[in-house]
Amino acid sequence: MVRKLEKQIPTSPFEPGGINRVRQIKERGHYDREAIFGVLDAGLIAHVAVIDEGRPVAIPMIYGRDGDRIFLHGHRKSRLISRDHREPISMAVTLVDGIIVARSAFESSMNYRSVVIHGKAFTVQDDEERLHALRCITEHTLPGRWDEVRGPFPKEVKATGIIEVEIDAASAKLRQAPVYDDYEPDPKVWAGIIPVVTAFGAPIPDKTVDANVPVPASLRCWGR
Amino acid sequence: MVRKLEKQIPTSPFEPGGINRVRQIKERGHYDREAIFGVLDAGLIAHVAVIDEGRPVAIPMIYGRDGDRIFLHGHRKSRLISRDHREPISMAVTLVDGIIVARSAFESSMNYRSVVIHGKAFTVQDDEERLHALRCITEHTLPGRWDEVRGPFPKEVKATGIIEVEIDAASAKLRQAPVYDDYEPDPKVWAGIIPVVTAFGAPIPDKTVDANVPVPASLRCWGR
Repeated sequence: MVRKLEKQIPTSPFEPGGINRVRQIKERGHYDREAIFGVLDAGLIAHVAVIDEGRPVAIPMIYGRDGDRIFLHGHRKSRLISRDHREPISMAVTLVDGIIVARSAFESSMNYRSVVIHGKAFTVQDDEERLHALRCITEHTLPGRWDEVRGPFPKEVKATGIIEVEIDAASAKLRQAPVYDDYEPDPKVWAGIIPVVTAFGAPIPDKTVDANVPVPASLRCWGR
Repeated sequence: MVRKLEKQIPTSPFEPGGINRVRQIKERGHYDREAIFGVLDAGLIAHVAVIDEGRPVAIPMIYGRDGDRIFLHGHRKSRLISRDHREPISMAVTLVDGIIVARSAFESSMNYRSVVIHGKAFTVQDDEERLHALRCITEHTLPGRWDEVRGPFPKEVKATGIIEVEIDAASAKLRQAPVYDDYEPDPKVWAGIIPVVTAFGAPIPDKTVDANVPVPASLRCWGR
């Protein structure tokens, strides 16, 4: 099994080879950091796959990134976080940009940007590193927010488990194209795109906030 | 291993027990078909987890549903589709409804609706069943569209592999709540929600379509 796993790992995580090679519709595959981190940075949620007692399990999680390092967090006793060291892990982030409405069901598709990462998970133990990871995760969702909020209490840091994903192999797969027909399209038959966006509203204050408290600086661009 | 796997399966797929029991923040867990299928039906993309040569792999896929049966499709030679019969599989669908901006990083969160399914994957062989599955998948993304488009060519059906996911265990996890503080909130400190929606634009015709061709009936509600 070990030999098989090693065979699947490319020489560099950002080169195609083995497990990260996009095999279906190869021209949609990208392997450079710019494409891969572009999608990761634009996403809100990753779906993480781990093996739990012999079964694959897909779990939605938020995440953060610092260079090539990816961080996940959760309750330190949760299924994902309380794992052994350096277990294989996979994560995918997908953004849908449009529904491709073709002249046939077969050519119907989506415009999307997706990333699949294959790596090893290990628990971050050092307290300074753990705080850094929490900052990366908070800043991923809400850039600029970490410095506006109170720091975590010791009991909060203690309850939180941090996983770092060391990237073994990564790929992006992008479709950003019009409708496709594999024969001469019939101009009398409608075909096109339904645009899809993830839209953000303006920040809504909680009812516990005094009316004269301004929206914090980090949030002022949201929903604009 | 087999004993372990069996222990993880609840008596009914829609009862909490073993692998589908929501363990972190239990009150967010739901196990009824209404909650689970409500999320599945509202989603566009599932992230599917399988074990590939000893590694977990997360892959984004579109899907369809007919009652308790879930269908996935892909090129018949693709990594997921060309699997052995009745292998364990997991899939998750997540919808983000808001970013919870708390007074601390620790209480920052999201409002979301998510589903995790644990099941067995098997290849659908019967041609009539395969067509039915393709209809379910098309109708999931674009209700009413199947009857408007030309039927698949034999070569298209042949190239397409269909996986049915037999559900062993399922759960939904929902957070639909305001900001939470575990101590008396300070009304001078801003906290609230940034609403998040998946928004659809009005259908845009392809440049191959004649100007006088109307938008098909099934698409007229999109982006309105």
